[in-house]
Amino acid sequence: MIQDYVATQRKGIREELQEYLRQSASRLSEVNEFGPEVANLLEEFSSAGKMVRGALVVFAAELCGATPDRNHLQAAAALELVQSFLLIHDDIMDRDTTRRGKPSVYYGYVERARERGISDPEHYGASIGICIGDVAMLLAVELVAQLELNSDLRARLVRMLSHEIAQVGLAQMKDVDHGAAQDKITAEEVLRLYRYKTGRYTFALPFMTGAIIAGREAHMVEELGRLGEELGVIFQIKDDQLGLFGSTATIGKPVGSDIKADKKTLFRLYLFESASEEDRERLSKVFGSSEVSEADLEFVHDCLKRNRVPERVEEDVARLKQRCEHMIAELPGVTRKARERLTAVLEYNLTRDR
Amino acid sequence: MIQDYVATQRKGIREELQEYLRQSASRLSEVNEFGPEVANLLEEFSSAGKMVRGALVVFAAELCGATPDRNHLQAAAALELVQSFLLIHDDIMDRDTTRRGKPSVYYGYVERARERGISDPEHYGASIGICIGDVAMLLAVELVAQLELNSDLRARLVRMLSHEIAQVGLAQMKDVDHGAAQDKITAEEVLRLYRYKTGRYTFALPFMTGAIIAGREAHMVEELGRLGEELGVIFQIKDDQLGLFGSTATIGKPVGSDIKADKKTLFRLYLFESASEEDRERLSKVFGSSEVSEADLEFVHDCLKRNRVPERVEEDVARLKQRCEHMIAELPGVTRKARERLTAVLEYNLTRDR
Repeated sequence: MIQDYVATQRKGIREELQEYLRQSASRLSEVNEFGPEVANLLEEFSSAGKMVRGALVVFAAELCGATPDRNHLQAAAALELVQSFLLIHDDIMDRDTTRRGKPSVYYGYVERARERGISDPEHYGASIGICIGDVAMLLAVELVAQLELNSDLRARLVRMLSHEIAQVGLAQMKDVDHGAAQDKITAEEVLRLYRYKTGRYTFALPFMTGAIIAGREAHMVEELGRLGEELGVIFQIKDDQLGLFGSTATIGKPVGSDIKADKKTLFRLYLFESASEEDRERLSKVFGSSEVSEADLEFVHDCLKRNRVPERVEEDVARLKQRCEHMIAELPGVTRKARERLTAVLEYNLTRDR
Repeated sequence: MIQDYVATQRKGIREELQEYLRQSASRLSEVNEFGPEVANLLEEFSSAGKMVRGALVVFAAELCGATPDRNHLQAAAALELVQSFLLIHDDIMDRDTTRRGKPSVYYGYVERARERGISDPEHYGASIGICIGDVAMLLAVELVAQLELNSDLRARLVRMLSHEIAQVGLAQMKDVDHGAAQDKITAEEVLRLYRYKTGRYTFALPFMTGAIIAGREAHMVEELGRLGEELGVIFQIKDDQLGLFGSTATIGKPVGSDIKADKKTLFRLYLFESASEEDRERLSKVFGSSEVSEADLEFVHDCLKRNRVPERVEEDVARLKQRCEHMIAELPGVTRKARERLTAVLEYNLTRDR
């Protein structure tokens, strides 16, 4: 079970995160009191994550037949810091006030600003959040640049990491734009967004990281990257589904926040395509509104079901699943056991409920 | 004249920026249309800068007795991208709508959002601006990680760069916090902020970058860093002075924007310390207000002069100047010519008017 695997890797990654961020706290205390504050906050925030990305670095090393070592764990910790950076900035853009069951990072500062009587607490919180995200990203880069690796591999990792995350930034822009504008979006565009915003970053990046540290050749690294991309698209579609049908307790953010942000998911796209004019009118008011009530949510669920949207999305997922199965079968230079483990990841992405 | 030197270096750095960002535009077009849009925007935005930081990389190489090569110019281009990243994020936090004589990056998107009828254009512009800043930073890291250098030097550069910029992020938090809260701040704290927000980043970082690429030993790199820090503090104090007394045309941002943002400059600190109670009451209303009129500005100028604040700041500057002169005289392993050139940089920082 991949969930169990991720769970077993968390401890080692957390320890690396802890060690690095405690070191950073002391180093950065030289600048000002925000140095240790940010390092401690990032330790707590990053440690609370599922650590799927970090665990997948170690997983990829094993797939490549390598014995995961401290470099893999440190790279995993760096990817978790990258994840924190992205979440911190995303929550500002999406105005998500809750994350991982607590106030989101920026929103924690909004609340503190209110207590301190600072004028425009929202702006204060967003500003501090921007900075904390930036620092998280830079600490991640610094950690990767410090790995005790052959320096060519290290430079290759830094290049790959910065390139992949820049692509995530561009995909995020598209996401913001689609959330704000009322432009039509096609299923193809949605899937491209998923490839870059989640697919490459959640799966391809950790896979490639693990493979590069394991010293695997460029061809193998690329193939793993491509497979990761497809696996990640499935992961994202599942995420959208959980965002619509899950519960706040299991997904760690308010259900309906994607509806509020008017995220252009495949579900939303198919829903608006197939809903009756009357339903579409009400749906238009619900998606993107600042308050989504229980009744609104029920109405959305009902419309989705009546229009067989989940089934239609399932068809897309089935196609992606087939493609993954093919790629797993064709992946060069891995053992049968490795293929089985990749298939288990695919299964997890297809069936996870949190 | 250091201004002339900076001007002569701009062409070479701009060419590197152009080449790298045009390449990036084509590479990133794969993700979505924001790829080339952001690359083009960053080319234009970064090329419009004074390029002090970039030129100082080349300058430092020369100080170290090296002949500047393409690596220096590319590292210089990377630092200009870093500068763009910081300005783009800072303008969101400071709500500066103008930069380099044009709408600031985020504000350009606020305007476009208005034209497109997007609701909450301010939030849209800020969100897009956060992403563009992130991408700029990551492109800078990628460029440094690609330099055709001995890979140990390259990793050392990436580590140093990410560490220094993380420190800038923390200093920026302090700046935001002081701007928002009404907490007392001491002159010592202000100067520490200047060290990290400008000193290390504007002078120490380019100096160290140039010296590392030139292959100089750690001791020399550090000494240059320390000198850069002091030079940069003087640069920042001059910046505050220009922000108060300069004109929009020469400084490229609205005069009075530091007053609006209630930036806790040395000038502001000394002014509030020495002003009469009556003046202080009116000053409290002007600093941090959303509109600063011509009359307000005149009143601030008048108070500054009456309380001999510029003279008091000059005394601090004189002390910093002395320290720099001492460090320049003691710098190990550089020629007399190099010392003269460093003295010219010091003079520029003391007397620049834009």
